[in-house]
Amino acid sequence: MTTFAPAPHANDTVSAILMNSARMVESALRDSVGRLSPALRPPVFHHLAGGGKGVRAALTLLSATATGAPQETAVVGAVAIELVHNFSLIHDDVIDGDHERHHRSTVWSEFGIGQAIIAGDALAALALQVLLEEPTPRRVQAARCLADATSAMIAGQADDMAFESRLTVTVAECLAMMRGKTSALFSCAASLGAILGGAPDEVVAALAAYGSHLGTAFQAVDDVLGIWGEPTRTGKPVGSDLAAHKKSLPVAIALARTDGAGTELGRLLHGDMSAADVERAGVVLTLCGAQEETMDLANTHLEEALASLDRVPLASLPKSDLVALARFVTDRDR
Amino acid sequence: MTTFAPAPHANDTVSAILMNSARMVESALRDSVGRLSPALRPPVFHHLAGGGKGVRAALTLLSATATGAPQETAVVGAVAIELVHNFSLIHDDVIDGDHERHHRSTVWSEFGIGQAIIAGDALAALALQVLLEEPTPRRVQAARCLADATSAMIAGQADDMAFESRLTVTVAECLAMMRGKTSALFSCAASLGAILGGAPDEVVAALAAYGSHLGTAFQAVDDVLGIWGEPTRTGKPVGSDLAAHKKSLPVAIALARTDGAGTELGRLLHGDMSAADVERAGVVLTLCGAQEETMDLANTHLEEALASLDRVPLASLPKSDLVALARFVTDRDR
Repeated sequence: MTTFAPAPHANDTVSAILMNSARMVESALRDSVGRLSPALRPPVFHHLAGGGKGVRAALTLLSATATGAPQETAVVGAVAIELVHNFSLIHDDVIDGDHERHHRSTVWSEFGIGQAIIAGDALAALALQVLLEEPTPRRVQAARCLADATSAMIAGQADDMAFESRLTVTVAECLAMMRGKTSALFSCAASLGAILGGAPDEVVAALAAYGSHLGTAFQAVDDVLGIWGEPTRTGKPVGSDLAAHKKSLPVAIALARTDGAGTELGRLLHGDMSAADVERAGVVLTLCGAQEETMDLANTHLEEALASLDRVPLASLPKSDLVALARFVTDRDR
Repeated sequence: MTTFAPAPHANDTVSAILMNSARMVESALRDSVGRLSPALRPPVFHHLAGGGKGVRAALTLLSATATGAPQETAVVGAVAIELVHNFSLIHDDVIDGDHERHHRSTVWSEFGIGQAIIAGDALAALALQVLLEEPTPRRVQAARCLADATSAMIAGQADDMAFESRLTVTVAECLAMMRGKTSALFSCAASLGAILGGAPDEVVAALAAYGSHLGTAFQAVDDVLGIWGEPTRTGKPVGSDLAAHKKSLPVAIALARTDGAGTELGRLLHGDMSAADVERAGVVLTLCGAQEETMDLANTHLEEALASLDRVPLASLPKSDLVALARFVTDRDR
């Protein structure tokens, strides 16, 4: 089982960061899921074999080295983060009814909804077990960070679902939802290595702020790719989020327009959408400049993330890696 | 919202135990779920309003008082246990496709599968958060106990599901599955109050053993009620577990029979079952004495549970309450 897939569009620096992280974390992650009962392994192994870039694991390792701790200290945190991330993917695929992820069948479509529910549940519980196994003060603080982030992520996901049946969602509401759905786990990932390495509170807080802003920027770019991205690259059909009435950031931005675009989009997103409605919604979003405004917001959050790194003393090389990784995950060509 | 429902068939002692526990735990449980994001509340509140006897919460409180700690010490543990228990019920109802629980619609049938998944996820994460909020050594040990029990419960549930597609399951395999699916959380519930109260390790271990055996006895009786119980009382249609090819303890016992009953039952449980097949399977189970043998096993585990209580010094009144509660939950007329 190879859990982390190469990122073909990454530059050499980012490729090296991700490959190092994969090398450090993959066997520990394999050991931890190897502890699952045999009945749980087929759905979990199927999912993990789909690969992922391992960005969150890399953030966790870098947050240790940036604060002067060996990256080995952070491996258990990186494993726990990846377990929670993959738990959320397996359940989200059921919730969204998605048949494919990374051009492979999703767990529920391959094994059924029951198996997907139980496989996700198992990964979530395992993540906390892994951290609490040696109850040192740092591990406990790390477990608390992860439990809080998991709760926030679930709340954000619930808001995202609730937005589907709402006629309108403000940009502020959408950003708050993104802070839960995506930023909470990024923030935990980017500070967990510092926590495990025993970094001072203000350094942990600065890295958490970096991760939180980075998560929001990442999600904003993801929202843009969901509407204007190349389907062969994103692995998602064009307009699927629009057809599901998702109120992503570009949609919230367009709905706030007072020049007619907001009204027209609101009308299109109401009730069942024909293929023509979905296409027209895409046109309205393009014409009203929602793409540019979303990318502007993504850039603002990227800059905030990078500024957070300048507020505390960090080791120079891992810090420049955190910068490179941030630029990569917010790049439209990632 | 009333979370705990009265147990109409309990004697006065057990009614008093459960009412005290409800009074102690209900408002704390309400406060904890009140922290959930508004989008998560409708499915969670709908589920909790269905009520439950609160047996696990009562075990947690008694495990504190039996070891000389005030029951207030254990309330956070009882809340966490009930959160995990209800998370598992919400997800199990999706997995088993059950439309009703306690004569009310299940979360997924009322709100959809997505809402049921996210509501269960939220309760599981909240349980750990609640325990880790004040990271004292006892809370951390309690969180670890709960995370381990949750993982074991999920593994047991996965085994239970895997058994459905197997032709045969041994009694030993079935008992191992039950130790995960049911006994693990009972064991954690019955020792969590002692952990939070700072009881010595051997006392915690004895209470954990009491809870584990009690969980197995409880599940065995539940299996009997699932086949031979009064549907108006169990709230489940007769034979629904058989029709789903569940390998409950009476089925595993009958499949091990070498007098022809095992072969006939194996044949009946293979493939789609007609109503006549389900009825005949019930008859075969009755005729081969699987009910009596299951009740014998339940009684053996009940006696083991009670013997565990005699191995360590416990306060007399809470100890007699633990005995009364054990006899109640393993009573066919509970």
